[in-house]
Amino acid sequence: MIHQDSYKQHISAQFNAELESVKNHLLEMGGLVEQQIGKAVEALLHRDSGVAEEVVAGDERVNDMEISIDEECFRILARRQPAASDLRLVLAISKVTTDLERIGDEASKIGRQAIKATEEGGSSTSFVEIRHIGAHVSDMLRRALDAFARLDVDMAVEVVIADRSVDSEYATAMRSLVTFMMEDPRTIGPVLGQMWALRSLERVGDHASNIAEHVIYLVRGLDVRHVEPDQLMAQVEESE
Amino acid sequence: MIHQDSYKQHISAQFNAELESVKNHLLEMGGLVEQQIGKAVEALLHRDSGVAEEVVAGDERVNDMEISIDEECFRILARRQPAASDLRLVLAISKVTTDLERIGDEASKIGRQAIKATEEGGSSTSFVEIRHIGAHVSDMLRRALDAFARLDVDMAVEVVIADRSVDSEYATAMRSLVTFMMEDPRTIGPVLGQMWALRSLERVGDHASNIAEHVIYLVRGLDVRHVEPDQLMAQVEESE
Repeated sequence: MIHQDSYKQHISAQFNAELESVKNHLLEMGGLVEQQIGKAVEALLHRDSGVAEEVVAGDERVNDMEISIDEECFRILARRQPAASDLRLVLAISKVTTDLERIGDEASKIGRQAIKATEEGGSSTSFVEIRHIGAHVSDMLRRALDAFARLDVDMAVEVVIADRSVDSEYATAMRSLVTFMMEDPRTIGPVLGQMWALRSLERVGDHASNIAEHVIYLVRGLDVRHVEPDQLMAQVEESE
Repeated sequence: MIHQDSYKQHISAQFNAELESVKNHLLEMGGLVEQQIGKAVEALLHRDSGVAEEVVAGDERVNDMEISIDEECFRILARRQPAASDLRLVLAISKVTTDLERIGDEASKIGRQAIKATEEGGSSTSFVEIRHIGAHVSDMLRRALDAFARLDVDMAVEVVIADRSVDSEYATAMRSLVTFMMEDPRTIGPVLGQMWALRSLERVGDHASNIAEHVIYLVRGLDVRHVEPDQLMAQVEESE
């Protein structure tokens, strides 16, 4: 009996180590993707095509990490057949890695816009907006990953709600860029580039919000993916 | 012994029925999403805000289906603890449902552009491009879902390769729209709307391609998510 118990403990310790490991790899991927976004925004603001090239090249590592995390999830499910909350964790990791990979894609798109902007020269009209929305979504991403690491529902709810402000900041920035283009049609080319970059940043906010929703699901078993933010808090509080 | 065998057969038949059921739900969701894209494009081309409103409202059903398919996947994994290829299938379904939900989001965005375009009036400049790229990505989506239903790798490879033509058609269409705007800045507002719609369609092509990549992974165990199309065929042939 003692022998069997210690065997079980051994298996369970190994399993926990595997779960910790895949979780750490996910957070490592999150850190890389955060860096990619930060560098892409800097490259765009400072017209630094060297940094932009680094971002575009760095996307390969993000892609590799997605594949390897998915394989890790597959192996854990195949060998450990986890139940209940561990199973939810593995499934959430497998979904979050997709969101991180897509954030990586957006960073790479912004990097390509930065390269184009550097080649074309000309002035940037939406520095303030890009810097501001870039900082906002980077902060959301960092908090979404922190919330995931600590299974912190309150922080996750904040991220989902913050996405609403990003959407409205984005809409305002786009309107002012349209006005700008209309007033000076020679700016159409570069301003469009800035619009695409803003669009990418807005998508990063969406993905950060998705990650936060997975945290809420993990902790509360509550699927809030399509709940409106104003009802979100009430639903989360009810589920306590 | 006979009793136990028949019990095992019973369990296995039930398990197969559950797998079939979740696969069918996924294909049903795929059919709905295909319809949503088709209707959104028609609404945009014919300035039909009634149909556009239907598309926007219909996104809720798409969202509900995503949640219910994810729950089905969770239940199968928790109760059946499938191994090897069945496990891969369930994981692929859980990833494909995310792609379908995002295609639904793009349909909804196109629907909103259609409503805006109807309100604003004015002429559409990119009928041909929207119709053409819309038909192309709808066809890709249908074939990606067919490939999934039949586990047809050849068809899946075709879809991934087709995405490359969509990307180049999209780039051409965008360039001509930029020229159009520059020549007549009064068209900036409506032309931007058409650009967003084209961007959404291009994203639909990306998601259809993702679905096809999951089929290749399912059948060949080959992760081709980040393989360039020109190397894709060779890798898939090698894996036979």
